[in-house]
Amino acid sequence: MNLILFSPEETKSPLPHQDARARHIANHLRRSDHESFDAGLIDGPRGKGWIVKRLPEALVLEFDWESTVSELFPVSLLIGMPRPQTARRILREAAALGVRELHFFSAEKGVDSYGTSRLWNTGEYHRHLVNGAEQAFSTRLPAVRLHTGLATCLGAVPDAADRIALDLYEAEDALSRNSLSGNDALLAVGSERGWSGAERDCLRVAGFRLASLGNRVLRSDTACVSGITLILAKLGHL
Amino acid sequence: MNLILFSPEETKSPLPHQDARARHIANHLRRSDHESFDAGLIDGPRGKGWIVKRLPEALVLEFDWESTVSELFPVSLLIGMPRPQTARRILREAAALGVRELHFFSAEKGVDSYGTSRLWNTGEYHRHLVNGAEQAFSTRLPAVRLHTGLATCLGAVPDAADRIALDLYEAEDALSRNSLSGNDALLAVGSERGWSGAERDCLRVAGFRLASLGNRVLRSDTACVSGITLILAKLGHL
Repeated sequence: MNLILFSPEETKSPLPHQDARARHIANHLRRSDHESFDAGLIDGPRGKGWIVKRLPEALVLEFDWESTVSELFPVSLLIGMPRPQTARRILREAAALGVRELHFFSAEKGVDSYGTSRLWNTGEYHRHLVNGAEQAFSTRLPAVRLHTGLATCLGAVPDAADRIALDLYEAEDALSRNSLSGNDALLAVGSERGWSGAERDCLRVAGFRLASLGNRVLRSDTACVSGITLILAKLGHL
Repeated sequence: MNLILFSPEETKSPLPHQDARARHIANHLRRSDHESFDAGLIDGPRGKGWIVKRLPEALVLEFDWESTVSELFPVSLLIGMPRPQTARRILREAAALGVRELHFFSAEKGVDSYGTSRLWNTGEYHRHLVNGAEQAFSTRLPAVRLHTGLATCLGAVPDAADRIALDLYEAEDALSRNSLSGNDALLAVGSERGWSGAERDCLRVAGFRLASLGNRVLRSDTACVSGITLILAKLGHL
């Protein structure tokens, strides 16, 4: 944790000693009373926190927040629902890289049960976003939405000047050679078994260009990091 | 496994049923006798394999190899020895992306015990290279070397036209805005706690430019994937 994030409600009451953040502050950072650590309010400002009192069950913290709030980058990721272990990495990495929205859709070549994993049912996914943001020293979490299919997903994503779908088989060109025309972009990554023909049609109708990341077959999470990296670089953010 | 890799010696005797590849061929791919699967010889050609006989303890396989062998990309990664779990991901991802050489060095801000992990002592690292290559449908594994420090590492890496070190704090410019002058490159990534002043001096003397990947603090393995991606794109391989 480079930055320790709290929800606004959490800052109003003492932090239980068994909370991972309390252990991190007391045992890993070894902060004495009134010695500050880097803190942030989720989707709010960064600032400093410090211990003012150690109760038997909890730490009493105080905070001083900055006046500005950082922004995420105007890039949204659309991704065919991957296996939960891969989804955990994508949530964390996309949050760390500063992606604004994450749209997971049930893909035609996907596995239905992936979307009903405890990752999604228990709200566990939120923890991976927080981990990614804390790593990146950021308070902002990407918005996350789940969709029943690509078509409904495409109806729900924000408007964007550039729309690119990664595809190893029917790509018109390499993503690295695509030039972007605007300041915001959508990046679509298929399920682990790739796009169906109907999904490719759907993407083309919605104005997506099919682009490759070279000839090597990358895992979904590697493809997400590489694709986001190239788009952020083209938009001037990396 | 998109491609199932074998060492040349392994192709000369039956493959025991308990070998993960035998289980993959028989149980996951469900190949019947003489039905082919994608196979490769480590650092040799790709081709096809098939079962010719099922013994009580092993599968007897035959292979047909292509005449050409693919190449890795002329990019070497230098990385401050990270914790073993991070090193596993870097080994796999760098192998999948097609990096030619991986040089791990003990960094001044690193942790000495990381280099004596069973990952390195037992040869486990090799398995992660194979996993990455199998994912990428490639037979070629990056060469891996461990060094006692950055200075000895710099004396052992190949010559390269472009030498870039990722650095959040003293970068002259963003990696994405660096133009490369040649066809091969070295990318250096510090330890998880960053570069020491002496290491930065050492890099500058060796002709490295310090470059950033934006303002967000990325994990070492994410920084490796993003940095390799940008360099491969600039060299025209992505």
